[in-house]
Amino acid sequence: MPVIQKQYEQYVAHLQKIQDLNSTLALLHWDNEVNAPPKGASLRGQQIATLSATVHEWTTRSEFGALLINLNANRQALSEDEAKNVELSLAFYNKEKKLSTAFVTAFSRAKTNAFQAWLKARKAKDYALYKNELSVLVDLLKEKASLLGYEAHPYDALIDEFEKGATVAQLDVLFGDVRQELVAFAKEIKAKGTPSENAFLTRSYDKQKQWDFGIELLTQMGYDFEAGRQDISEHPFTTAFSSKDVRITTKIEENNPMNMIGSCIHEGGHALYEMGLPAKQYGLPLGMATSLSIHESQSRLWENQVGLSLAYWKVNFPKMQARFPEFLGNLTVEEFYKAINQLEPNFLRTIADEIHYHLHVLIRYEIEKGLLDGTYDVASLDLTWNQKYKEFLGLDVPDATCGILQDVHWAEGLFGYFPTYSLGSFYAAQFYSKAKEDLPNLEEQIAVGNMEPLLEWLRYHIHQHGQKYTSEELCHRITGEGLNLSYFMTYAREKYSVIYNFDTKVLSEI
Amino acid sequence: MPVIQKQYEQYVAHLQKIQDLNSTLALLHWDNEVNAPPKGASLRGQQIATLSATVHEWTTRSEFGALLINLNANRQALSEDEAKNVELSLAFYNKEKKLSTAFVTAFSRAKTNAFQAWLKARKAKDYALYKNELSVLVDLLKEKASLLGYEAHPYDALIDEFEKGATVAQLDVLFGDVRQELVAFAKEIKAKGTPSENAFLTRSYDKQKQWDFGIELLTQMGYDFEAGRQDISEHPFTTAFSSKDVRITTKIEENNPMNMIGSCIHEGGHALYEMGLPAKQYGLPLGMATSLSIHESQSRLWENQVGLSLAYWKVNFPKMQARFPEFLGNLTVEEFYKAINQLEPNFLRTIADEIHYHLHVLIRYEIEKGLLDGTYDVASLDLTWNQKYKEFLGLDVPDATCGILQDVHWAEGLFGYFPTYSLGSFYAAQFYSKAKEDLPNLEEQIAVGNMEPLLEWLRYHIHQHGQKYTSEELCHRITGEGLNLSYFMTYAREKYSVIYNFDTKVLSEI
Repeated sequence: MPVIQKQYEQYVAHLQKIQDLNSTLALLHWDNEVNAPPKGASLRGQQIATLSATVHEWTTRSEFGALLINLNANRQALSEDEAKNVELSLAFYNKEKKLSTAFVTAFSRAKTNAFQAWLKARKAKDYALYKNELSVLVDLLKEKASLLGYEAHPYDALIDEFEKGATVAQLDVLFGDVRQELVAFAKEIKAKGTPSENAFLTRSYDKQKQWDFGIELLTQMGYDFEAGRQDISEHPFTTAFSSKDVRITTKIEENNPMNMIGSCIHEGGHALYEMGLPAKQYGLPLGMATSLSIHESQSRLWENQVGLSLAYWKVNFPKMQARFPEFLGNLTVEEFYKAINQLEPNFLRTIADEIHYHLHVLIRYEIEKGLLDGTYDVASLDLTWNQKYKEFLGLDVPDATCGILQDVHWAEGLFGYFPTYSLGSFYAAQFYSKAKEDLPNLEEQIAVGNMEPLLEWLRYHIHQHGQKYTSEELCHRITGEGLNLSYFMTYAREKYSVIYNFDTKVLSEI
Repeated sequence: MPVIQKQYEQYVAHLQKIQDLNSTLALLHWDNEVNAPPKGASLRGQQIATLSATVHEWTTRSEFGALLINLNANRQALSEDEAKNVELSLAFYNKEKKLSTAFVTAFSRAKTNAFQAWLKARKAKDYALYKNELSVLVDLLKEKASLLGYEAHPYDALIDEFEKGATVAQLDVLFGDVRQELVAFAKEIKAKGTPSENAFLTRSYDKQKQWDFGIELLTQMGYDFEAGRQDISEHPFTTAFSSKDVRITTKIEENNPMNMIGSCIHEGGHALYEMGLPAKQYGLPLGMATSLSIHESQSRLWENQVGLSLAYWKVNFPKMQARFPEFLGNLTVEEFYKAINQLEPNFLRTIADEIHYHLHVLIRYEIEKGLLDGTYDVASLDLTWNQKYKEFLGLDVPDATCGILQDVHWAEGLFGYFPTYSLGSFYAAQFYSKAKEDLPNLEEQIAVGNMEPLLEWLRYHIHQHGQKYTSEELCHRITGEGLNLSYFMTYAREKYSVIYNFDTKVLSEI
């Protein structure tokens, strides 16, 4: 075997060992959310810290760096995929090396402190209990940005961690459009009032029956229960230990079955992506999801374009009716479809509808950017927050828990993460539009419960590639252009103009 | 802070990191048994291998060895407990260092092969499909014995791994007595026939009701569900990630409620030991169980001395009756007690009664010893096995799955483990005899469901010490003498002479 191939194998072995640890870390986190008894929490935190430190040490080991540099210099002797893996690993290595051990330790400590302070502040509904710790964290994030380096804006360095190549310059344009178009659209909708009666969605839906229905929907989507499982947790999430063990969680509230249904479909969408990554690339960049935005495009596409469509409920509403005849027996699928697609602004991102959602993200984007460049400061950030909610959503935030304290992200040091939620939704609309073009009877298939054509389309165009292409490259390959908000706006206008009777088209025609 | 104290803290930090990995490994195993979807198995195996190799590397790191040697040389500057920790860690380090990386790798591979062959052989009920792989493993175990070193018998080196200080010379005496006394006792009992009707124990007991009853019994014992949880698995087991997260599993068969009850109490006994270890010694020898035999003494004491006693069922039989009135409504507690305490030889160790159990262990002890010193060979080991079952238990083994293939231990390279099962039972009888002496109204307390005096006694005399004393030292401290089989024989004779009416004492008097 040529020397270079041997070295490539060494590289693979090392990355797969790191992946073994990362998968194990994911199990520790999953277990914490799903199973762990309360008294075990503090030692569990220590176990997670030890594994995380080991991952960092293995990732930044200089012999490994030398191996990567050598492989990259000899990339002509590697296959295209191999060379791509090496290139991406080297870039990751170089980035990780920029963060000193002293910084990593200080940042880790600051996150722990901020998280504890956030918990206390939420309990007391008092932002003041959190702002000192948040301030320390923001200073460290500024330091991180300069350690990582950036050209135009410090926030660029942080966004890049979650969405490679994305910049403030690009996102300012995108979110400028979001602001202009969505704020107007949301107001237009609001003026139309409530389209239909929906009180039946808040009756007491038996939890076991809800659970069973969720499993049925997941199975229909193609979620493989031989390579995963669903459990209950406080906040639904997806985690993958490998493409052969991808777990999801959900939450069941008796008076809100659509919440559980939405979570099953959303997490199911994430899980199908992880299950579709190439198993032979385990631990390597080409075996990992492209980016957070593409991940979110998968969950959102299933949740919104599919799971909130009339076609989807044509096959599934009768099944839901059969489980809950007492609440749904007298309804038509059109009435149900209208009821689950009502737009209403509220304080909380996590329960926002698919339109207002992006105004929540926009606010966070503006605040993160402003914190990094000094436009806003942490001391009065709650006021900034409330002002923006008034401006964009027309809401007076009642207290900090429904306001600036609602998300855990900042307390966990995650700055630059929020924008990917919106990017994901916009990619979803653009991809789905293309899928309908490629698969002319797609919605008819969905309407009879056949999700396979869609899943195969996603597997072929997105899942199998791992990180071979960036989000933008992938989007170009699939749709012939970069991310374009107009697909989302067209989707939104077409759908809600019918639901809110903006035009004469009636539901039975779509 | 004196230099030596700083070094002690380094030592503690290193051991606790190793414990973090070991706890994580335990979680990977637990998850495999309890949750993991089938397709994830092979990558899970790889994740376990990576963590195991890391533990070995950290354990045998020569800088760590130098630190231990230095600390041990300066032990006069340490507290008694600190010095004990260092002494035990150094002994463990020296032992681990004797095994070369080449040996560890070969042994690990041989175990994987043997386990796979064992699975196949069980399926085909054919020992021939397993013996080559077992033979490789036995050769490696002989090599391991010489690498570790021994004075009198190669088996000594292997027993020592599970039961520090135990030797063939001692165990030959003990198992000689077991053979003489128990074989005779078992025959004597058998001649008495069946003491009472027990068909009601094999009716269809609702699984959920069994589960609920098991939880009730565990709660009564003092098992802390805030620091643990129970789940279902194929083979019941206990695993501890720390003393604050100690999990147990059970198995429920509709036609055998006593099996689940016995497993809850047995694993509950193991778990109470782990929960009682000193939390501040996390990862250090003084924070770990003394030995396998002492561990087993805890599970067996609860399972047999307590869980199969009349006192225990005085409080718990009415509770069980209330859950299953259709099967138990017309019985007295004495009838129930007799029914659950019937002695009957059978092929399988795991379902053996508390007397015949030790004949199963005796057979395995003799075979392991004979394999190590060349008395027996692997090629015809199934015949040796069957011959001994005929001799000691009077049974003709029908096939290899009920015979030599019944236990997984050998396929996992565990030689020297089995004797600890019997040692544990004998320690249990000896400890319980002493506890009754120390706590004169112990059985009256049990009979009203108050298990706290017993648990406190165990916590004080056993749990809190970790590995501060060896099994023998602990036994001396508690009972004033070393392990003495006569306590077990007295317990057995007293109990079964009443049940089988050897004498005139009647149940209502005991």
